[in-house]
Amino acid sequence: MTDVYEPLTPESLPARLSTLESVSSRLGTDHTQWSVSEIGDGNLNLVFIVSGGNDSVIVKQALPYVRLVGDSWPLPLYRAFYENCALTRQASRTSNAVPDVFHFDEQQALIVMEHLRPHVILRNKLINGEYVSGLGQFVGKFCAQTAFRGSELSMSSADKKADVGVFSGNVEIPAITEALVFTDPYFDAEMNNHNPLLDSVVSSLRSNVELKSVVQRMLMKFASNTETMLHGDLHSGSIMSTDTESKVIDPEFAQYGPMGFDLGMVTANFLMAYFSQPAHRSSDLDDYQQWILDVIGETFSAFSTEFQRLWKSERTGMLYPTALFEEQGHDSSGACDSLLASIHTDAMAFCGIEMHRRCLSLAHNADFENIEDPGARAPLEARNLNMGAQLILQASAISDASLLIGMAEDFNKRDVL
Amino acid sequence: MTDVYEPLTPESLPARLSTLESVSSRLGTDHTQWSVSEIGDGNLNLVFIVSGGNDSVIVKQALPYVRLVGDSWPLPLYRAFYENCALTRQASRTSNAVPDVFHFDEQQALIVMEHLRPHVILRNKLINGEYVSGLGQFVGKFCAQTAFRGSELSMSSADKKADVGVFSGNVEIPAITEALVFTDPYFDAEMNNHNPLLDSVVSSLRSNVELKSVVQRMLMKFASNTETMLHGDLHSGSIMSTDTESKVIDPEFAQYGPMGFDLGMVTANFLMAYFSQPAHRSSDLDDYQQWILDVIGETFSAFSTEFQRLWKSERTGMLYPTALFEEQGHDSSGACDSLLASIHTDAMAFCGIEMHRRCLSLAHNADFENIEDPGARAPLEARNLNMGAQLILQASAISDASLLIGMAEDFNKRDVL
Repeated sequence: MTDVYEPLTPESLPARLSTLESVSSRLGTDHTQWSVSEIGDGNLNLVFIVSGGNDSVIVKQALPYVRLVGDSWPLPLYRAFYENCALTRQASRTSNAVPDVFHFDEQQALIVMEHLRPHVILRNKLINGEYVSGLGQFVGKFCAQTAFRGSELSMSSADKKADVGVFSGNVEIPAITEALVFTDPYFDAEMNNHNPLLDSVVSSLRSNVELKSVVQRMLMKFASNTETMLHGDLHSGSIMSTDTESKVIDPEFAQYGPMGFDLGMVTANFLMAYFSQPAHRSSDLDDYQQWILDVIGETFSAFSTEFQRLWKSERTGMLYPTALFEEQGHDSSGACDSLLASIHTDAMAFCGIEMHRRCLSLAHNADFENIEDPGARAPLEARNLNMGAQLILQASAISDASLLIGMAEDFNKRDVL
Repeated sequence: MTDVYEPLTPESLPARLSTLESVSSRLGTDHTQWSVSEIGDGNLNLVFIVSGGNDSVIVKQALPYVRLVGDSWPLPLYRAFYENCALTRQASRTSNAVPDVFHFDEQQALIVMEHLRPHVILRNKLINGEYVSGLGQFVGKFCAQTAFRGSELSMSSADKKADVGVFSGNVEIPAITEALVFTDPYFDAEMNNHNPLLDSVVSSLRSNVELKSVVQRMLMKFASNTETMLHGDLHSGSIMSTDTESKVIDPEFAQYGPMGFDLGMVTANFLMAYFSQPAHRSSDLDDYQQWILDVIGETFSAFSTEFQRLWKSERTGMLYPTALFEEQGHDSSGACDSLLASIHTDAMAFCGIEMHRRCLSLAHNADFENIEDPGARAPLEARNLNMGAQLILQASAISDASLLIGMAEDFNKRDVL
């Protein structure tokens, strides 16, 4: 392999990876027998499935620009370094929840990792009306374990602060989230697009000064907070599932941030799946929408349960030390519940913001975009946008997942267009 | 000067600094004519006044341990590096508010800086009942300018995040604050001491689980927040004043943290000066206490006024961009007020915590400690401790400095012992 960064092609890949023992031990030493297919459908990277013998691996390589936009938007290759950091940390903080990393090459910005089979992108399953058992339990537990174990509730301050230093070199990737998620949706930014039939709804959101003020306060929390290492982009395209198992992939937006961010973002993507369903199915619509709401409820319930379990069993950091509570004969479960409530409030606001940006900013999601008829899509997007606004403005009042679910059911019946 | 770190002595200092042009140009090239006196009365460092000709400079050198405790508590010399970083940044963010740095030697952990004359430590003036005109205005403006200009309200995200990376290497210094300020006061920690006559008050505080829970939440905010670069230790011993001018010194506890921290900490020290006054004077007691309360009011008023001014004139960072507000014809002053309210709430809680730790933890302050009779000191400390608890528990309700001042006047009349 040469030292200079060079994007792989299906043709060049086998020869260039043939010397990697971690690959050849899986696919066979004769690289001319490997087959390669490029499957990258994301916005930023090259992704290859490389098969040989009876095995296969994923090779993911960063491109020096945003694939969705082209080389007019350069993006540093170092994000592969942070993705590898994140995958490594997530693997140690969760069990069996992320793909194994077989090889990382910083110079080539590439990661060779486990090929998840027969998992498919969760978003596609949600659009197709497929059920995934244990999904909410998995997602809630993943969020709680990464939030708790990546914080000074668990880590030593020296380790955690050193890791904040490692991630402080990551500027351009957070900048994408900062602009596309928090700011662009709320004014007529250059790269925005939205369904023209939503003009009146969009105009109403963009003229709501209080809404913009709260969203910017959440941006400040997102950008100036190092509570834990986030996945940073935990939507249903970052989860791969079979009917019974799920994994989290693609943490290249990992950064330090507030504990409620991942929880809020993934909830938003479940809610968008929910609101988009009337355009994707008819006969089993009610059942499937109910299942998505159940997943949301289970996600929050699993988050709290797992967070409380870790609070009792792994609170080894400097925050809320047992010396101050248990060792004084004082129950700390109220302190845990109070922290959970503030995480929950943050999550509600981040959820509403994600619901907005996916209809208003650059990167829309397939749940809505696959609805070809703008006239069929608009009322569903409008429900989503209006609920998002309420979540942002009333975040602290939505103190329980059951209130969130009731609100979704209510908005699902409203026709505002 | 040798490369190996070596603590200076009054005897060794002239020869070792004689080659520094920044020193000899002020004190004369014949270092045998310089006079040196060691004046360090702080907890951590050597501090010398070096005089020659008609001029003088301050030489501050870090010691590799906590001076207050001894070499049983080692402390890294790198804090001089962070102090120099902080002085440099504060100098660029404020006008004429910190001493000029003439020379910095990282290896020797020493800073040669302006000798402030005839300034004395503000705490001593407050104990002596001396007035400092413009004090509240100065402190409030200093806090607002450093808070605003050190944040992504003003700085580019790349510059600010790089600086967070620089400061992420600073672990042991924040750890002192984390333990001594936020945790030790609330249980029987090894290095604590308090006036035994306060036992009942202390016991009541330490058995208040809700109080401890809120304080730990504030610790989490302090340790996991990078809103701006703080002074980090802004008490009345870190301010030097004449009767008409003040300067801020000693930012070796500088770190990134929440915007309300410095404001809360300095307010606590004004309140402790206020509560301690009955033991320091009699005839002019009411007038002087009223003046301290006026200083507190002016501090908050100046903070808000300056923050709002910078909001209008220097909001060049990614947060609350004008593209989202002013350029849409939308007034952003409500967003500014809302942010100020949340800074204010944080400040109230940090204030209460600082009021506690100065009577309960390791480093007490002279305002109370100079009161030799424990029986005279205890009721004044009790007022301070009880008001601290109320500030912590009701932080968001104390929405205005006038409420804070009214509360102080009320506690000043209460005898709880």
